[in-house]
Amino acid sequence: MTDTSRELGVGQVGYAFMGAAHSQAWRTAPSFFPLPLTPRLRALCGRDVGAAQAVADRFGWESVESDWRALIARDDIDLVDICTPGNTHAEIAVAALRAGKHVLCEKPLANTVEEAELMADAAAEAATQGVYAMVGFTYRRTPALSFARRLVADGRLGTIRHVRAQYLQDWLTDPDVPLSWRLDKSLAGSGALGDIGAHVVDAAQYVTGSAITSVSGVLRTFVDSRPVAGDHSTLGGSGSADAERGPVTVDDAAAFTASFANGALGVFEATRFATGRKNAMRLEISGSDGALAFDFEEMNLLQVYDATEPAETAGFRRIVVTEPTHPYTGAWWPPGHGLGYEHGFTHQVVDLVDAIAAGEQPRPSFADGLSVQRVLAAVETSAEDDSRRHTVPQDARTAEGPHAGQEGDPT
Amino acid sequence: MTDTSRELGVGQVGYAFMGAAHSQAWRTAPSFFPLPLTPRLRALCGRDVGAAQAVADRFGWESVESDWRALIARDDIDLVDICTPGNTHAEIAVAALRAGKHVLCEKPLANTVEEAELMADAAAEAATQGVYAMVGFTYRRTPALSFARRLVADGRLGTIRHVRAQYLQDWLTDPDVPLSWRLDKSLAGSGALGDIGAHVVDAAQYVTGSAITSVSGVLRTFVDSRPVAGDHSTLGGSGSADAERGPVTVDDAAAFTASFANGALGVFEATRFATGRKNAMRLEISGSDGALAFDFEEMNLLQVYDATEPAETAGFRRIVVTEPTHPYTGAWWPPGHGLGYEHGFTHQVVDLVDAIAAGEQPRPSFADGLSVQRVLAAVETSAEDDSRRHTVPQDARTAEGPHAGQEGDPT
Amino acid sequence: MTDTSRELGVGQVGYAFMGAAHSQAWRTAPSFFPLPLTPRLRALCGRDVGAAQAVADRFGWESVESDWRALIARDDIDLVDICTPGNTHAEIAVAALRAGKHVLCEKPLANTVEEAELMADAAAEAATQGVYAMVGFTYRRTPALSFARRLVADGRLGTIRHVRAQYLQDWLTDPDVPLSWRLDKSLAGSGALGDIGAHVVDAAQYVTGSAITSVSGVLRTFVDSRPVAGDHSTLGGSGSADAERGPVTVDDAAAFTASFANGALGVFEATRFATGRKNAMRLEISGSDGALAFDFEEMNLLQVYDATEPAETAGFRRIVVTEPTHPYTGAWWPPGHGLGYEHGFTHQVVDLVDAIAAGEQPRPSFADGLSVQRVLAAVETSAEDDSRRHTVPQDARTAEGPHAGQEGDPT
Amino acid sequence: MTDTSRELGVGQVGYAFMGAAHSQAWRTAPSFFPLPLTPRLRALCGRDVGAAQAVADRFGWESVESDWRALIARDDIDLVDICTPGNTHAEIAVAALRAGKHVLCEKPLANTVEEAELMADAAAEAATQGVYAMVGFTYRRTPALSFARRLVADGRLGTIRHVRAQYLQDWLTDPDVPLSWRLDKSLAGSGALGDIGAHVVDAAQYVTGSAITSVSGVLRTFVDSRPVAGDHSTLGGSGSADAERGPVTVDDAAAFTASFANGALGVFEATRFATGRKNAMRLEISGSDGALAFDFEEMNLLQVYDATEPAETAGFRRIVVTEPTHPYTGAWWPPGHGLGYEHGFTHQVVDLVDAIAAGEQPRPSFADGLSVQRVLAAVETSAEDDSRRHTVPQDARTAEGPHAGQEGDPT
Repeated sequence: MTDTSRELGVGQVGYAFMGAAHSQAWRTAPSFFPLPLTPRLRALCGRDVGAAQAVADRFGWESVESDWRALIARDDIDLVDICTPGNTHAEIAVAALRAGKHVLCEKPLANTVEEAELMADAAAEAATQGVYAMVGFTYRRTPALSFARRLVADGRLGTIRHVRAQYLQDWLTDPDVPLSWRLDKSLAGSGALGDIGAHVVDAAQYVTGSAITSVSGVLRTFVDSRPVAGDHSTLGGSGSADAERGPVTVDDAAAFTASFANGALGVFEATRFATGRKNAMRLEISGSDGALAFDFEEMNLLQVYDATEPAETAGFRRIVVTEPTHPYTGAWWPPGHGLGYEHGFTHQVVDLVDAIAAGEQPRPSFADGLSVQRVLAAVETSAEDDSRRHTVPQDARTAEGPHAGQEGDPT
Repeated sequence: MTDTSRELGVGQVGYAFMGAAHSQAWRTAPSFFPLPLTPRLRALCGRDVGAAQAVADRFGWESVESDWRALIARDDIDLVDICTPGNTHAEIAVAALRAGKHVLCEKPLANTVEEAELMADAAAEAATQGVYAMVGFTYRRTPALSFARRLVADGRLGTIRHVRAQYLQDWLTDPDVPLSWRLDKSLAGSGALGDIGAHVVDAAQYVTGSAITSVSGVLRTFVDSRPVAGDHSTLGGSGSADAERGPVTVDDAAAFTASFANGALGVFEATRFATGRKNAMRLEISGSDGALAFDFEEMNLLQVYDATEPAETAGFRRIVVTEPTHPYTGAWWPPGHGLGYEHGFTHQVVDLVDAIAAGEQPRPSFADGLSVQRVLAAVETSAEDDSRRHTVPQDARTAEGPHAGQEGDPT
Repeated sequence: MTDTSRELGVGQVGYAFMGAAHSQAWRTAPSFFPLPLTPRLRALCGRDVGAAQAVADRFGWESVESDWRALIARDDIDLVDICTPGNTHAEIAVAALRAGKHVLCEKPLANTVEEAELMADAAAEAATQGVYAMVGFTYRRTPALSFARRLVADGRLGTIRHVRAQYLQDWLTDPDVPLSWRLDKSLAGSGALGDIGAHVVDAAQYVTGSAITSVSGVLRTFVDSRPVAGDHSTLGGSGSADAERGPVTVDDAAAFTASFANGALGVFEATRFATGRKNAMRLEISGSDGALAFDFEEMNLLQVYDATEPAETAGFRRIVVTEPTHPYTGAWWPPGHGLGYEHGFTHQVVDLVDAIAAGEQPRPSFADGLSVQRVLAAVETSAEDDSRRHTVPQDARTAEGPHAGQEGDPT
Repeated sequence: MTDTSRELGVGQVGYAFMGAAHSQAWRTAPSFFPLPLTPRLRALCGRDVGAAQAVADRFGWESVESDWRALIARDDIDLVDICTPGNTHAEIAVAALRAGKHVLCEKPLANTVEEAELMADAAAEAATQGVYAMVGFTYRRTPALSFARRLVADGRLGTIRHVRAQYLQDWLTDPDVPLSWRLDKSLAGSGALGDIGAHVVDAAQYVTGSAITSVSGVLRTFVDSRPVAGDHSTLGGSGSADAERGPVTVDDAAAFTASFANGALGVFEATRFATGRKNAMRLEISGSDGALAFDFEEMNLLQVYDATEPAETAGFRRIVVTEPTHPYTGAWWPPGHGLGYEHGFTHQVVDLVDAIAAGEQPRPSFADGLSVQRVLAAVETSAEDDSRRHTVPQDARTAEGPHAGQEGDPT
């Protein structure tokens, strides 16, 4: 039985797409998982108080705040959940940690390596006081990927040789899709690289348990100007030929080869121009004893090849990752009754609350987020340097490696 | 904006697997969809009050009741949601309707045609007073199947010739899986036929908009005795050789051919012995102008073939049913970010509340449920009669046909 | 090394679609497989000598004949290969066998059970003299299906419970496809049932090693008249509204449930109206210990499920059936370099020549062909009798069961 | 009707794996396609005359030669087909062309750019005399890829943005697979890069009709020593721990990013360590108006996405490339009756003979082969230079671009 006498006061900053996903997760987690601390949805924070109040009403937040500083100052808030754009992460997260609040911060950790380093340092300092920080790479909590990591950690794939990772979307294929903050380098930091490339970098390091040590990359912007969204001369969603156009200052697509600490060769691609692919976050890993393949468009499946089988009966197994012994799935529905995108956020809450209650560092830590940030930065540097191979710095902050613990294991 | 001043008091009977799915749906629907009435989770009813209270706490039910009659008697209850086994449906539903409560009743509508007829009559009577009843064939609310129906209704498939429907599970493959109420005819009514066959019968009639008019069937029980679950000599989940065994009194598998009112030829199969298939609820429909194929194990996909294309470029299209214009999906996440099993229950709440508020008959109605029940009964009769073809009775109660309205259309 | 001193003189009757497939097979088999007898393409027989000569030139037949009786009479002919329509099979085959010629006869064995019985009797008689007959169910020689049979025979699937077999084509979907001999009952015997249904009946009995003992069926003709092909008022391939139309006298589609001698429940479907399916010959078999699935549209793949695996890592394996140890494939190309439709005919030649040289009965024998014919006849009888279940007669001719020997095993 | 009065005398050098594929193609092409010249299999050439004679007997070669110079000198030879390892190509091909013989040369064109340039020059010179040379990138003749090119050429994909190409095999995954000439740089030139990477480079340039202009690459040798195959202390195929081991001097895997002349971004990977992938030659191309995807493990299928469709019904279409209007397939079997690996070689013969008879340059020309060679060389140079981006030289020899003509179009 869950001990409901111990509560965890949650304050969330941001209420849009990610804000809804997080709200639903905070509310849903204790209904399906036995949690050592019961989340209380204390306050939702947004500059537009009216809009924040509407979302708060929809999800059951007890109050709203218009200033994140006020949120952090509240005594009934034990944890700050940051769902705002990347350029605001560092300031809020560091302040919250210094105020003794646990922090869950959406990815990417920050828009620059410098900010990410500050955040990782603040998190390391806070952890010495039992205050913990986590970054929101929720794809780790997809049961199939969590199970993939377990298979690799258990040695089922042997020595890892290849990592093939793609994150393919197509929402920018049309050159008249209007500008938005995601296409503005000053707000978003980068384009496909940081937004979705970050996910596959984290997933690849997480599943393999090995860090990327060098990269050779290329960035491409296929459509360098787009209609200004606020231009009132445009009607409809896709702009028009004579609409005012502004510059796209981020990459539309990124590709890079990578070396892993374990000797594997990685090939990565992130793009918003993969026509027909809606959210194809794909990972294929080959080892001396086996291989696995995943595509988020079929998120409840994992393809696994066992090379120790006789060749005659060996083949990629289409595993429906919904068994009671698979990560997370036993808490939900019977086998074959799949989960959706949002469940990863619920699992994230579960792992975070478990770690806080246990006094252990939740993963992915800010150090893990920093590690991803450094890979992205090295790709950008390489791309500006004729794709020359650049080393990804490793230091004490990220030295423990991405593997530790087994999130999502049935209890 | 949602008008939260009007509320709908909900009382739910049953709190196990289906009870959890319904609870989550009642709570989640208003967070993602604008509802004309706001559900209030007034009371959860279960004979074991302690267990009911625990579930009520997890999902936010305001109170518990131990007797469904007391639940029905409460003034703050506007709707009764029945999640108990099939042998209890008729009594509770009829009583609730007569007490002026709207009813949502889990499938199958009842364990016998006679009970189903009583229920359909009670529902028809209640509807004249603006009190509505609905049966819980939630697979209709899978966006891909709802979209499939729209394509058929829009004539995209032309004249329908073939319906190929399968519901494949494998949880009884092991002969030492113990007995449970689902294997007892007196409680469950039938086996695979009524439990999962009912779903594909409803889905087939729903998507095609055409009723099954005759069937020729066969039932099979592959393992006719199983360990008694409560036998304390057994350790672990799968019994043992010397455990006491009791009789299986329902079908393990059912198969039948069917004629549809529109002239189509149907082939149906429902089984719990389809080794390796976890929840493969599959539908393939062929028409003169196109075809479609669905498998719930990949529930966010629909395969659609357009025969009016030149042969050279025609092929089954793998449509990722997550676009804003697809049924229900616009309320959730961006394209490619799929939904899971439980979302069908949330969509069911949405459609039910919309219909109640509009004073319209929600679908599937009890008459629709009766129509399914008659098909199942005809299959059983045919199976006992050397598979001879038997007519499925149609009458005024089911005369309007399964097609009406377009659930899940974006508003 | 192949001993080329011993030759097998081949005479082939028929030179159209099947004639080309057989010609290519006779010529190709000795190039890739070590054969104990070297086929000599002695004579091609066709009523239109000019057309036959053209095909003979293309494939290297040494001569042509216009009368099959003359062909049979030739001393240099050891084997007669019959590629003509079904209504001619019995007369030619029986005459050839009585003349001491081995016979390969295209499927279906005959258009009626009576003819098939005559043929089986003639074959049994001939076999006592070392003269052998074989019927051309070439799909058996698809490596994936041959491998499937081996898995079942080796007990890898345990007790068989389900057989799900479909043969889906769509070339009649358009109601203006003109009439042809295949739509004329007097020539073709039946429609989809005999043409393609026969293939899945044979494949199901072959792979499971178990005979179908009873069936309950339904036939359907969706389009009962079609343009007369020779009508010169029509332009283009699909007729026109005002073209003369003649009656379709065979089934467009057939469906039936079946009981197998081993207790399995079968569901069969054969149709030429499965819009979008070009040649989807599908077989899915479930047993207590495993399952397999096949679709000829991906003929080099076999999906295999091993239920003895832990549930966590169990899944249908996508086996690329091109390994050296798979049936037939070692004689061709490296792994992953797939075969095509025509290779089944080459394998058929190989198995036939091996059996003849070894003095053993090649399979599928005429008795096997008769067994299929009886299933088809029982389906027709059942369909005319309100789908009532009808027994498929078994007798001494078919008593040995479909399983014997292991065609395609590497030598 | 085929005019058989005009013949083309063929002499083939080499009789192993590729030799068998070519022999079968030369013999089969005129049986299924109307050819303007009839190939005569005049002579098979191999240093081991006995082995050559055995293969000649199997495929119907009229004679054998032990010295390719003698072959070239024969008056009855019009065309020399070179199936030997890459290090011998230049000498034989140049000599044959200078002797006035047409040449078909297996890929890769040569082991070095210098040799390839010599060959392209010799071919250009010969072409002025009506003597033609072609290089054997047979994957172009897979109907699905030929059809893919037609779709791109017809503008169906719009502006090409992404090319994602992989050639994945796994036969070196086991570190005890013994050494062979393919792992010896002096004979093979390179490893996965030249052997299979060459195929995807050619296919990508062919399908897109655009040349690769720069690359940034990395090579990897995962297992740097292997058992010496001839070591008689080893028994069985996979060596043993104490067997003598020799160095692997080529790459096990290659990866590179690429820029195309049309602005597309390419990501390429070729490896013999992709565990579980037997012959996964994959190509995915994204454009502004559509996309396509191909995997040779399902060679009869092409996935095509049409972005001009409404989003609601858009999806990758699984086209079964076996229609009469698809490239090459009309000459074979009915729709859905797929082809295999070897058919590409037959199509190659058809296109070559058609071009020779028409007095036109067959494609891929030696210039096309040189273009591929330069890409491979640039990848190697980049890999040795810290993956820095290197330009792929373009000159007059390759200036016309890879697109010209429409091989495989139905006639």
